[in-house]
Amino acid sequence: MSDIEIAQRAKMQPIIQLAAEKFGIPAQDLDPYGHYKAKLSLEYVDSLSHQNSMGKLILVTAISPTPAGEGKTTTTVGLGDALNRIGKKAMICLREPSLGPCFGMKGGAAGGGYSQVVPMEDINLHFTGDFHAIGVAHNLLSAMIDNHINHGNALDIDPRRIKWKRVVDMNDRALRQITVGQGGPANGYLREDGFDIVVASEVMAILCLATNRADLKERLGRIVIGYKSDRVTPVYASDLKAQGAMAALLKDAIKPNIVQTLENNLAIVHGGPFANIAHGCNSVTATQTALRLADYAVTEAGFGADLGAEKFINIKCRAAKLSPSAVVLVATVRALKFHGGVAKDHLNQENLDALKVGFANLERHIHNVTQNYKLPCVVCLNHFTHDTDDETAMVVAKCAELGVKCVISKHWAKGGEGAEELAHSVLELIADETPKLEFLYDDKLPLRDKIETIATRLYGASGIVMSDKIEAELKELQANYGELPICMAKTQMSFSTNPATRGAPSGHTVEISGLKLENGAGFIVAIAGNMMTMPGLPKVPTAEKIDIDDNGVITGLF
Amino acid sequence: MSDIEIAQRAKMQPIIQLAAEKFGIPAQDLDPYGHYKAKLSLEYVDSLSHQNSMGKLILVTAISPTPAGEGKTTTTVGLGDALNRIGKKAMICLREPSLGPCFGMKGGAAGGGYSQVVPMEDINLHFTGDFHAIGVAHNLLSAMIDNHINHGNALDIDPRRIKWKRVVDMNDRALRQITVGQGGPANGYLREDGFDIVVASEVMAILCLATNRADLKERLGRIVIGYKSDRVTPVYASDLKAQGAMAALLKDAIKPNIVQTLENNLAIVHGGPFANIAHGCNSVTATQTALRLADYAVTEAGFGADLGAEKFINIKCRAAKLSPSAVVLVATVRALKFHGGVAKDHLNQENLDALKVGFANLERHIHNVTQNYKLPCVVCLNHFTHDTDDETAMVVAKCAELGVKCVISKHWAKGGEGAEELAHSVLELIADETPKLEFLYDDKLPLRDKIETIATRLYGASGIVMSDKIEAELKELQANYGELPICMAKTQMSFSTNPATRGAPSGHTVEISGLKLENGAGFIVAIAGNMMTMPGLPKVPTAEKIDIDDNGVITGLF
Repeated sequence: MSDIEIAQRAKMQPIIQLAAEKFGIPAQDLDPYGHYKAKLSLEYVDSLSHQNSMGKLILVTAISPTPAGEGKTTTTVGLGDALNRIGKKAMICLREPSLGPCFGMKGGAAGGGYSQVVPMEDINLHFTGDFHAIGVAHNLLSAMIDNHINHGNALDIDPRRIKWKRVVDMNDRALRQITVGQGGPANGYLREDGFDIVVASEVMAILCLATNRADLKERLGRIVIGYKSDRVTPVYASDLKAQGAMAALLKDAIKPNIVQTLENNLAIVHGGPFANIAHGCNSVTATQTALRLADYAVTEAGFGADLGAEKFINIKCRAAKLSPSAVVLVATVRALKFHGGVAKDHLNQENLDALKVGFANLERHIHNVTQNYKLPCVVCLNHFTHDTDDETAMVVAKCAELGVKCVISKHWAKGGEGAEELAHSVLELIADETPKLEFLYDDKLPLRDKIETIATRLYGASGIVMSDKIEAELKELQANYGELPICMAKTQMSFSTNPATRGAPSGHTVEISGLKLENGAGFIVAIAGNMMTMPGLPKVPTAEKIDIDDNGVITGLF
Repeated sequence: MSDIEIAQRAKMQPIIQLAAEKFGIPAQDLDPYGHYKAKLSLEYVDSLSHQNSMGKLILVTAISPTPAGEGKTTTTVGLGDALNRIGKKAMICLREPSLGPCFGMKGGAAGGGYSQVVPMEDINLHFTGDFHAIGVAHNLLSAMIDNHINHGNALDIDPRRIKWKRVVDMNDRALRQITVGQGGPANGYLREDGFDIVVASEVMAILCLATNRADLKERLGRIVIGYKSDRVTPVYASDLKAQGAMAALLKDAIKPNIVQTLENNLAIVHGGPFANIAHGCNSVTATQTALRLADYAVTEAGFGADLGAEKFINIKCRAAKLSPSAVVLVATVRALKFHGGVAKDHLNQENLDALKVGFANLERHIHNVTQNYKLPCVVCLNHFTHDTDDETAMVVAKCAELGVKCVISKHWAKGGEGAEELAHSVLELIADETPKLEFLYDDKLPLRDKIETIATRLYGASGIVMSDKIEAELKELQANYGELPICMAKTQMSFSTNPATRGAPSGHTVEISGLKLENGAGFIVAIAGNMMTMPGLPKVPTAEKIDIDDNGVITGLF
């Protein structure tokens, strides 16, 4: 059965009832969206903040993934279900899926097999409208910028130095670089512009890092949309008086969403910044709420640990004073063989030699988690039907050599039951030690050194390079925003900036090709190599196969 | 008190409970969106279609409006409340507000004063996400077009003859005319394009005219996105296999929304095509559902009767086999003085001479309703505090001369109570006669004659003109789509194509400046004069004043 078929057979409980049963959440603090989705009131979220007890945070991250992904969300759901099965009070925290990729190649992002959150179609299509609200808030600011210039440009915005693009929740390469304002005076001034996908919007990152409505509005006001004609004076969203209306548009989007797994356990699914261009984790509000409601909060960080976990720790944990009690590193035999040089079409055949070579990728991620962040780690080998016993045994043995436990987990096929061993291993890890999280760098470290630290200590690079122009830009940012953390934008496919370099490359050079100040989110994006903030559709997009019948049953979504 | 302050003081009832009480709608047939908004299941809508009894349809339309609008929505709500007050079972049917104008000059569209639907902020901002779903469905098709061309253009689409633009729910003049696909081969082929506001999308019109999911998908597939390189062969959305995914995106948007008035009466608020470029009425599903649930369904048609009512009758009533039992023509003393030549800043001063001259506008609309469509009509003089007794008396007397009753209505200040006299007058009208609706033209009439009929018989024009190019285009459309009705796109400010020509101009010429086939919606748009399908923001947009406080209370939205 396909994921959507499994999801459509789920026996869902009314969410209001389930939230009351599982965590005693009062009905009046939940806004229902249909019968199986709800938003938590911020008053309730706030009321929780006065309690002292906090659950343990479990971070699920992964090796450098193949294009199909290695099952990070699936594992997060499976582990959450397993913890609940063995009698623990656990809450799952996920990012919301992006609409665009549903119609392209990647598909949805609500887990897979028997480890999914439901209603799957709703979560993948529109959900509770958060991303639409973010998109409109973003585009309102865009419209206000061009409108301000059109009506006399009292703020003296340099139209050539506007950094704020527009967004759409679609994979649409034709919109990456455009010219706006054509057609004469009635349509404003001509300038170059472009569209990003909504998940790449700074508004998305802001929503995910804001701790309440006041913080949200302040961050929105702090957005730097570009510079004045003196080239250096920043223009803020607050100069355009945009932050109030933007925050009003986000009035509901800021509230965390609650849904359930196939096994009727609760999951908070909220926010979803791109893990390659933004920080790639769900909202701080979601994570903190889960930690206050449950004894264990299981959350995920986008793409491989070099991207998602790095930002989870150095950006989100730093900002929100969070600290994971354990890390689950998801790997697959398939992806390890891929890193060992096997072509995509041959990943279903046993290949122990390639597996051994490709293991280097996992080893590097283990090293990063345990040595750089000083966090305890367990490897979850997400089992695929073609994996042979010799292959899985080799991964387990090689992990053991590194002093790390590797659990073969079958939650995709069996749900929570299949991840029980993983759950026990995580609990042992948490019982064994109380880790003291170390950040990779200090706030005070100069921006250039922060980037270099990430590249050398985490990516295994020998150093970083950048053009004189970028170097000068970095210097300017250092003067005014030097204490901000770095948000690396890098391919998720490799430790290097070249997606084709698999395994665990060393001694390579990381070229910084661009910088982007996200002052509202509170970080500086450093673009490593060639990164796109607007995907395209493939030759045969999934959209061609998606359908809905006369009764509203959807097919072809995966 | 401002509209939003009045709305925020409303004593709302939980909508599920209210729907059960008032119309016996079962809870399981309602999807709640928060506690005060809900969507009706299509199964329930369908179950109603098997009953024979139908309520009476009351159409609220207006004279040619000033830029502020004359209170058509306010009157629709007030009349609905009044009918309920005097013991009738009445349901209100409104269009959804468009987000963009909330941030510009026009503001929201949920009624005003004590005749509003609530929750006002929710209805004006995002509501249940219908317009976002429509926007994404539209933009998915756009992305699939450019993607198809990028990957080899097997359908041989002429990139110069693509008629399908992109949409965004924002007033953003910079996006009216753009160039997409810049930046080299990775971003596709360069071509000229543009954005319309979401309400101008054909998908919006389709959603409003579709009678069920199958009809929706078929209409989406029928959309003509442009032509092949032979210049004449149409390319359909179904050629791109887009209709299934588009319909899936509209899975919830197709369900009618239920909210309540300040007086706790039910209103269906669903769909909202532009009344100048599209047909400007709420969904057929909404109107039919209201007629099946209630004894009286009160609905509105956008802008003045020359635009909204004309399309309501000749497009919507024709397609959905509806027939109004009575028409309410909304006028204001202010607007009549405006039509009599008074400047915007002097409308609050008594001016009987100007009122007498401006009455010609109302007279023309009365004539059109009663003589062209043969529908019984009552004039609602929507009372403003500055109206003098002599002014209102003059309007009443002049209407009486035409054999039409004019009721001074104070629902803005008093809610349903203020519209009770109007309600009684409407009921008398319905009791007195059973009208036999006449369409303005027959399906078989050639397209050119249809346009000419509208211009001469409704607008008072002496005839139509068009360039040879448009003439040739019309001829081609005649060959293949000759039986479709015409959807006129004209300024709402005047019977002519010049917004500055007030009153009731005669003998003018209507220039047809463009044609647009909307094959999925089932009409041909004829653009009269200079029409914009993407508004701009004013120098000081309302967005600057909109705010939200730490507790989520919104201000500045009107």
